[in-house]
Amino acid sequence: MLDKSKRYLIVGLGLLGGKYALELTRAGFTVDGINRSETHLQYALDHGYIRSGKTRDFEDLIQGADHIIFGLYPTTLLAWFRQYGHLLKPGCIFTDVSGVKTGLVEPIQQMCPPGVEFIASHPMAGRETSSVEHAAEVNFAPANFIITPTTQNTPRAIVWITELAEVLGFEHISTLTPAEHDRMIGYVSQLCHAIAVSLMCANDNSALCEYTGDSFRDLTRIARINETMWSELFLWNRENLIAEIDQFDEALGQLRQALASGDRAGLEEMFRLSTRRRAAFDKKQPD
Amino acid sequence: MLDKSKRYLIVGLGLLGGKYALELTRAGFTVDGINRSETHLQYALDHGYIRSGKTRDFEDLIQGADHIIFGLYPTTLLAWFRQYGHLLKPGCIFTDVSGVKTGLVEPIQQMCPPGVEFIASHPMAGRETSSVEHAAEVNFAPANFIITPTTQNTPRAIVWITELAEVLGFEHISTLTPAEHDRMIGYVSQLCHAIAVSLMCANDNSALCEYTGDSFRDLTRIARINETMWSELFLWNRENLIAEIDQFDEALGQLRQALASGDRAGLEEMFRLSTRRRAAFDKKQPD
Repeated sequence: MLDKSKRYLIVGLGLLGGKYALELTRAGFTVDGINRSETHLQYALDHGYIRSGKTRDFEDLIQGADHIIFGLYPTTLLAWFRQYGHLLKPGCIFTDVSGVKTGLVEPIQQMCPPGVEFIASHPMAGRETSSVEHAAEVNFAPANFIITPTTQNTPRAIVWITELAEVLGFEHISTLTPAEHDRMIGYVSQLCHAIAVSLMCANDNSALCEYTGDSFRDLTRIARINETMWSELFLWNRENLIAEIDQFDEALGQLRQALASGDRAGLEEMFRLSTRRRAAFDKKQPD
Repeated sequence: MLDKSKRYLIVGLGLLGGKYALELTRAGFTVDGINRSETHLQYALDHGYIRSGKTRDFEDLIQGADHIIFGLYPTTLLAWFRQYGHLLKPGCIFTDVSGVKTGLVEPIQQMCPPGVEFIASHPMAGRETSSVEHAAEVNFAPANFIITPTTQNTPRAIVWITELAEVLGFEHISTLTPAEHDRMIGYVSQLCHAIAVSLMCANDNSALCEYTGDSFRDLTRIARINETMWSELFLWNRENLIAEIDQFDEALGQLRQALASGDRAGLEEMFRLSTRRRAAFDKKQPD
């Protein structure tokens, strides 16, 4: 069980940082916050998500924290840590919420002062909305929580992050290396977003709205996207994502070729393969 | 109001033909059936979807029908009509359920005996299942019903098909030319299916099932597909579908290029465009 006498600090009170603050406070933990914007910090204070918080001169909050959760974009997290990382106190174990891990986890682990440990994790609970004002709408229960330890991590930190995920309400907790995580996320999340965005950008489809059925609605639901965050995530993971786009494009090209040459057997073979794989998927995951 | 003294005949008791039979019988119409497979005909008889039916020697059923609904694939419908079309009686108005119209509607209209009229339509209520045994699961209320008249059609036939759609439970009834219909369907339905199939075929993703979230599930739901029907529909509409694939592929290529060159502004611009278009779409159609 997580020790409730420890002091928690959330750096970056956005959608996920805000939700962590809310859930930890609800569970009886002491939670402070650091945020760039005064408005959102005030929102978190007004709604009781945090006990106290600051937008600057926050060195004392860092030095007093036993655990820190960084709700920052990867580029911002790296820059923040370069500036303030030396202030973390010995014994502090901290994590992030970032959707990409390679190029982030190891540099930060190398910057950690003695006795300070970074155990990276990714709550796969994105939404089309952002900001602390929507934090309460996030539902962690059906989402995956991925822990990405390296050889630098101790069992103690892995136990801490696992128990934290449980307190936050995650029911599916698993472990991957940073590289495995980024390949997986390139396929199951980023490629899907790249496709949905391209489908909306391909055509000014406003005149077709009245004819669309479930398939178009399903494929484009995730085309409403926070452009700042997703540009960051796409660029950070660009090698994996480009490889996934190319692999997808090859399959689409194969389908196009079968169409163009009137190859009915080739089309049917692809349809049978996709049906078989999707059916296997349905068996593993209730729809 | 549709005249209940008229005799209805369903040719092809599949998923949609079966549903038409069921709804018309429920509404108090006299419905007979013609089907190739004895088993499915018997199912329709056993469940009271039709009053009587035959698998062969069905000339009397054709000659006695005031209205016929063809639940056949386009190729089958053309072949059937070449063989039996001369048997339709003067005054008979009939329709189909086919997902493609160009190359189907005009040839059949040209083959019609004097006094016989074909008014084409498309109930956009596809499902991942097929066959009459699943007909009762189909829900017409939220689906679009598209009528595709030509210059050959009379107001009387358009009134009939509109009232038929209402009796069947469709709440969204609209009209397009056959060419407009096929362009629309190439984008909102066929392109989406081509993408979903390609996404499943691109990668043996069985190991990734446990990490997938809503986005992957949404994008691949329609990858379970009846290979015979969809090969037929894709090939029948191949020029439109290839044009849509190419347009989509250009947008995806633009995104890939922005990624490869680290063009953050270019990515953000695409994300803003897709967000704006999808938001406009949400306003027009409740999600």
